[in-house]
Amino acid sequence: MPTLRTESQTAAQLAVEDLRETWRLLTPEERFEAFSELERADAEDFFLDLPARDQAELLLQISTVQRRSWMRLLPPDDAADVVQAADTLDREGLLELLDGPTRSEVMALLAYAEDEAGGLMNPRYARVRPDVSVDEAISYLRKQVREVLENVYYVYVIDADQKLCGVVSLRDLFSAQPGRTIREIMSLEVTAARDDMDQEELSRLFAEHDLQAIPVIDAEGHMKGVVTVDDIVDVIQEEATEDIQKIGGTAALEAPYLEVSLPQMIKKRVGWLAALFVSEMLTTTAMSRFEAEIARAVVLAVFVPLIISSGGNSGSQASTLVIRAMALGEVTLRDWWRVMRRELTSGLLMGGILGVIGFSRVMLWQAIFHSYGHHALLIASTIGTAVVGVVTWGTLSGSMLPFLLRRVGLDPATASAPFVATLVDVTGIVIYFSVASLVLRGTLL
Amino acid sequence: MPTLRTESQTAAQLAVEDLRETWRLLTPEERFEAFSELERADAEDFFLDLPARDQAELLLQISTVQRRSWMRLLPPDDAADVVQAADTLDREGLLELLDGPTRSEVMALLAYAEDEAGGLMNPRYARVRPDVSVDEAISYLRKQVREVLENVYYVYVIDADQKLCGVVSLRDLFSAQPGRTIREIMSLEVTAARDDMDQEELSRLFAEHDLQAIPVIDAEGHMKGVVTVDDIVDVIQEEATEDIQKIGGTAALEAPYLEVSLPQMIKKRVGWLAALFVSEMLTTTAMSRFEAEIARAVVLAVFVPLIISSGGNSGSQASTLVIRAMALGEVTLRDWWRVMRRELTSGLLMGGILGVIGFSRVMLWQAIFHSYGHHALLIASTIGTAVVGVVTWGTLSGSMLPFLLRRVGLDPATASAPFVATLVDVTGIVIYFSVASLVLRGTLL
Repeated sequence: MPTLRTESQTAAQLAVEDLRETWRLLTPEERFEAFSELERADAEDFFLDLPARDQAELLLQISTVQRRSWMRLLPPDDAADVVQAADTLDREGLLELLDGPTRSEVMALLAYAEDEAGGLMNPRYARVRPDVSVDEAISYLRKQVREVLENVYYVYVIDADQKLCGVVSLRDLFSAQPGRTIREIMSLEVTAARDDMDQEELSRLFAEHDLQAIPVIDAEGHMKGVVTVDDIVDVIQEEATEDIQKIGGTAALEAPYLEVSLPQMIKKRVGWLAALFVSEMLTTTAMSRFEAEIARAVVLAVFVPLIISSGGNSGSQASTLVIRAMALGEVTLRDWWRVMRRELTSGLLMGGILGVIGFSRVMLWQAIFHSYGHHALLIASTIGTAVVGVVTWGTLSGSMLPFLLRRVGLDPATASAPFVATLVDVTGIVIYFSVASLVLRGTLL
Repeated sequence: MPTLRTESQTAAQLAVEDLRETWRLLTPEERFEAFSELERADAEDFFLDLPARDQAELLLQISTVQRRSWMRLLPPDDAADVVQAADTLDREGLLELLDGPTRSEVMALLAYAEDEAGGLMNPRYARVRPDVSVDEAISYLRKQVREVLENVYYVYVIDADQKLCGVVSLRDLFSAQPGRTIREIMSLEVTAARDDMDQEELSRLFAEHDLQAIPVIDAEGHMKGVVTVDDIVDVIQEEATEDIQKIGGTAALEAPYLEVSLPQMIKKRVGWLAALFVSEMLTTTAMSRFEAEIARAVVLAVFVPLIISSGGNSGSQASTLVIRAMALGEVTLRDWWRVMRRELTSGLLMGGILGVIGFSRVMLWQAIFHSYGHHALLIASTIGTAVVGVVTWGTLSGSMLPFLLRRVGLDPATASAPFVATLVDVTGIVIYFSVASLVLRGTLL
């Protein structure tokens, strides 16, 4: 258990910890039963820590009499997430549990896509007018904190048109002389996000500027809400999970592994597998064209997996590196030329190293087992040369594929390791047998 | 450009934005030159936003006269990162630029590993004694904020032994009646982290509890510092990058893609590629054992890439899903049995679907091109059956490998897509030719 408590734990606290650990293994009914047995205060803390999906699931099992007080525990941004996580039919009912002003706030939030800044922001934030004094601002702030605010990081200065005109950190507010006005101490340079900014871009903004909160404004500069960094933590985890799952060749699961039902899981996975399988059939077509060569020199066939996998592996490496660098904003579309030069050199060098290993393997087996007859040197040269070509080609296409995908508006992470491997397998076979024809023509072939 | 400014941009601000965008393309000398041309206030903001490696690089180019004031801009946790990012020889010099008390703080931080809670925490935090009144606490806090604090999220209550005994949120402090004591309003249940907690576990703690800050204590419960969620954003990005790079079959790069030198890059990549290449040589050995069968029925060879890649792809999928679920704490070691049952069923079902596609491919080509003579049905059955076996085996071994690696104390992400594919290629060949021997014995073989 990773958390430490300052006091020795009471039985009730242990029950909460137990429930936290076993939660994901329980059925919805078991969850509700265990939850109902918690003391109210513990239950509230536990409820607030749950993901929106689980909150919605619990809420709909709680008796209609009690449901309202639970729904009203949630701040508006979390309430919006719960409504979004519920089935379409239940949404209206959940919204009606809220008080009037909160309901309007939640409805406004629901108008935004879940994955843009407007969908992540909290519409309640600490605000002051520019012309009040520091002391007035502090007592106004104390009142706001009491009523509506979850967190105070920065106090935003809003003019009469509801436009954001500055920001004061709590630190500056506290340390300013009581009689000065906000206008005198506020900072004019505010890093703000537009309400339609994509959450991935937003998370880069947080990482780049090390901010605790970013204000959200609309196209006219009106202040709409605040996104805090703790919401971004979930976003970053989610985006990384999606990328990793795509790189592994699955559609994004969108729920924890053990909570996805088996039919759902298979649906997310078999589509890609089938598409790759059908594409990989091109290897059969490609190899069939060389059936005569294989019949004459069966030894050529036994090296096929070795050679094509060297291309697949180097391609997976290159595409994964480029995909991640793009996701972090380290590499953008216009860097394609620099990346290509770099990967061409890397591919040639790495192909050279593997080629020497492949050449040596054949010569070594020949020396020990006499496996390859008097054409051993020619076979070794074929393998060595083909590996250089295949690895270079794999590296190059693996690194360029994400650029191509992004260029046509697709997610670069679609260039999954299996996708690249399949692409490179087909060309790898053609490269290998072409090299073989050149080197072995007149001797083995 | 993702940030909006409330005022129209001055030329100086534009210069900062330009520098931000071109930064990663510049050499250290060009960086220093451009940085030197910024106005002091802009330069300070820019400097504070840079990663520690770049801060160290700049600091060492700044003249020794000015270097001190730049180093002292940094809060102690960032100063520690800069010292850690500098070469061993430069560290002493950088430390000497700090004032005495800060230097001791930084040295204490340097004693922790970079990737544990102690290495991430800020030793300065808002603290009060339990027996002061709310009003006294607020004015004491105003004084602390002015002097040393970067951010105030929670106020920590420390007893005479320097032990953490409670916490008061700013919200509760502000809304409490002025005359009550801290002891009366503080919360006793504090989620704290031990100073040696791993950063990955720490980031899960943040995600799970949606906290803005977590206090760090030593084994005796003494308060050592606070980790804030904005530091965790970087940690989460880093950990995801490491996992993604490992899944792609590279050692973690530990720097942005375009900033890693070519020799470094090749060193990180060719080791794994060579290891995989040597392992993949087992496919050659395996296929050589079936050379007689291939000589008799060359048609068998042309399906090898198709069949082994179906195992590699399903294995990459399964291992990637399990690796990510483990990193997020959704799946732990003791879940292996549930995962295995699940993946066995998925593997059989997905293998069945792909097997039918493979069977149909052969029969279709036979119907159209008469590619496979009068043994077509037998060949189709061989392919279909082998695909079921290979996909099931691939899925099963891909999902179990991360458990095995974690069990023996290795990083599960080492079960990279290329690693799993290589493992499954060898067994895939054996499964395929064994099925072929069984089905085709007496006819084609």
